[in-house]
Amino acid sequence: MIINVPENSDFSIHNIPFGIFSTKNRSKRAGVAIGEHILDLAEVHKLGVFNFEAEVLNRADLNDFIALGKSVTSEVRTNIQHWLQDDNSPLANKSELFVKQAEAQMHLPVCIGDYTDFYSSIEHATNVGKMFRDPENALLPNWKHIPVGYHGRASSIVVSGKAIHRPKGQTLPKNSSEPVFGPSQRLDFELEMGFVVGKNTNMGDTISTNQANDYIFGLVLFNDWSARDIQKWEYVPLGPFLAKNFASSISPWIVTLDALEPFKVAGPKQEPKVLPYLAYEGEKNYDINLEVAINDTKVCQSNFKYMYWNMAQQLAHHTVNGCNVHIGDMMASGTISGKNENSYGSMLELAWMGTKPVQLNDGTERKFINDGDTVTMTGYAEKDGKRVGFGEVSTKVLPAK
Amino acid sequence: MIINVPENSDFSIHNIPFGIFSTKNRSKRAGVAIGEHILDLAEVHKLGVFNFEAEVLNRADLNDFIALGKSVTSEVRTNIQHWLQDDNSPLANKSELFVKQAEAQMHLPVCIGDYTDFYSSIEHATNVGKMFRDPENALLPNWKHIPVGYHGRASSIVVSGKAIHRPKGQTLPKNSSEPVFGPSQRLDFELEMGFVVGKNTNMGDTISTNQANDYIFGLVLFNDWSARDIQKWEYVPLGPFLAKNFASSISPWIVTLDALEPFKVAGPKQEPKVLPYLAYEGEKNYDINLEVAINDTKVCQSNFKYMYWNMAQQLAHHTVNGCNVHIGDMMASGTISGKNENSYGSMLELAWMGTKPVQLNDGTERKFINDGDTVTMTGYAEKDGKRVGFGEVSTKVLPAK
Repeated sequence: MIINVPENSDFSIHNIPFGIFSTKNRSKRAGVAIGEHILDLAEVHKLGVFNFEAEVLNRADLNDFIALGKSVTSEVRTNIQHWLQDDNSPLANKSELFVKQAEAQMHLPVCIGDYTDFYSSIEHATNVGKMFRDPENALLPNWKHIPVGYHGRASSIVVSGKAIHRPKGQTLPKNSSEPVFGPSQRLDFELEMGFVVGKNTNMGDTISTNQANDYIFGLVLFNDWSARDIQKWEYVPLGPFLAKNFASSISPWIVTLDALEPFKVAGPKQEPKVLPYLAYEGEKNYDINLEVAINDTKVCQSNFKYMYWNMAQQLAHHTVNGCNVHIGDMMASGTISGKNENSYGSMLELAWMGTKPVQLNDGTERKFINDGDTVTMTGYAEKDGKRVGFGEVSTKVLPAK
Repeated sequence: MIINVPENSDFSIHNIPFGIFSTKNRSKRAGVAIGEHILDLAEVHKLGVFNFEAEVLNRADLNDFIALGKSVTSEVRTNIQHWLQDDNSPLANKSELFVKQAEAQMHLPVCIGDYTDFYSSIEHATNVGKMFRDPENALLPNWKHIPVGYHGRASSIVVSGKAIHRPKGQTLPKNSSEPVFGPSQRLDFELEMGFVVGKNTNMGDTISTNQANDYIFGLVLFNDWSARDIQKWEYVPLGPFLAKNFASSISPWIVTLDALEPFKVAGPKQEPKVLPYLAYEGEKNYDINLEVAINDTKVCQSNFKYMYWNMAQQLAHHTVNGCNVHIGDMMASGTISGKNENSYGSMLELAWMGTKPVQLNDGTERKFINDGDTVTMTGYAEKDGKRVGFGEVSTKVLPAK
């Protein structure tokens, strides 16, 4: 290795995720994370090792790089893997190629055109159904037939490290028919993963579950911030709006599907059988360990493999009506909850609507998220000594403005 | 006048709407419609009459032009009004400045970042509530407190003239619990107007109802295509998704708020009183006559003035939680229905769920939209001999792919 990578680093030689960074002396540009460093791809380009225009690496987002296609971007990744391990590689002894992550600022990795949020964990949908609707019929009739999703707000997706303000809005007090206005009293996180679309389609085109991997560039951690009290009052009949669109937070490094290939696993059995356009072959879930901490207290331990609907099914469903997708579109999974109570991916579920407050290490307890709290989500896959991680999405909550 | 404008033209000297056009010899660029012509703003710029870079007029969208701010764009509009009426103006006797609309192709006028659809007609919400829920309690409890809205798909918004395909998707047959897959059997239009955001905000910022006009560049006609059978099966609990995101169609010319100023009228009385952040002063509705035709048969005659919630309230609500908006964002009104049965803005209402088929001039009847049908929406305001129109959004429906 031409650069030191600490043991257990999320950004091992097996990962090589892409992101956009800047430093005091370097404008926004593309890089890959390796250990505690960033390899500056714009600088690497100057060595003449790439067969594409330097421009695509000197942009404020990765969209044009991704548009080169997987034949190019996958080769860039595997070349970097070889070069980093070869003491005689073009990258050797060139310290100007590397920047310490601690000295860099990370930015949104892509320009997000449209953002879609799914609702694909059966445990989460069941928990929410029990709380808000009917405990005996927690899942709505369409849930096992459709990877239910809805459109979210792209403009307010921010990168890890960017603090957010508690939203204000209308809520309906208990036993009242008159709404009141004020800061949300039930601010919540939702532990999700998001995938970044890697290839355009035209209106009218569909993507089959078999083709889906070609259209997925990679994944990030995704915190779908939610104001439960605003959501409850506003969401019928057209779905969540102000309860969600004030902010969503993502981790800065896009981990490619290539890097996640070794961690594929089978998903849950789908019964009843899905319609043919949602049927799929092979393993389409991913074994990715996920954790959520409030300040220094771990409150949730979940796994992406629990998802009932996989990304290939989400993309096939999203396009089956001819809806077009663009490079940089973000598609989030929905809250990732498991069967165990400590695997629930939201405070709504962990504290069960406030009836079971969560204890923090400092002796305080939480039903929802307080002002000043920092919520941090981390995730990694590990197998046969290979670790591929996502870093973190960490966000501090400031008081309402 | 230095160019002939037919009487009753939508594009009178009082209008001067902005759009993006191209011809065989001219790449995509900004123009304004005047009578049956387009004034090529990139060519006008060459005369040295504008105090900003030519570049913003030579783009594939108006976003950078709009970003110059209303102090600039409003002056451009009023200058053009003066020049067109002055035989000694810089534009006189310069035929290269004008293109016949018949010889130009129109494009989407803006790059749309996020698209929001509201649900702001009380008549439409009541009609839908009667049909799908409870005739006695047609309006949901939140409706008179919140300008209900949801996020839609920006990528599939297309301009007038672009044909669309009937979407395919899941629907639930009557008296069955198993969904089936196929072309929608209940394809519908929704008569709406959309406004284009003209000024950015940052996350955390709010826009008051008093400030809203500064953030609205102008309006277009908007057809929110809807597949009612897909919608019915998918929309609980997170709202419409595939039933809407296959396509929305807009008219190509953005009519500015300046041009619509003379047509302001009072909106309906809002009872119960709204929360303070939704209260507003002055007249915020607009008297704009709207029509829908299927092929050559007029099927609906409505008016934008019927809206219960106005655009200022929509924008104040959208941002009250700190959600940021960007130049080019599109916000649609929701279906514009009036009190009379012929003013209903969708086939769902006009044919009352298929129970009252609509007769067309060719002797056929429609419950919903057939393959091969062309749906055309038109709109204009008129007062004291001044006419300001929107042209049309006209879309042919092709069979499912």
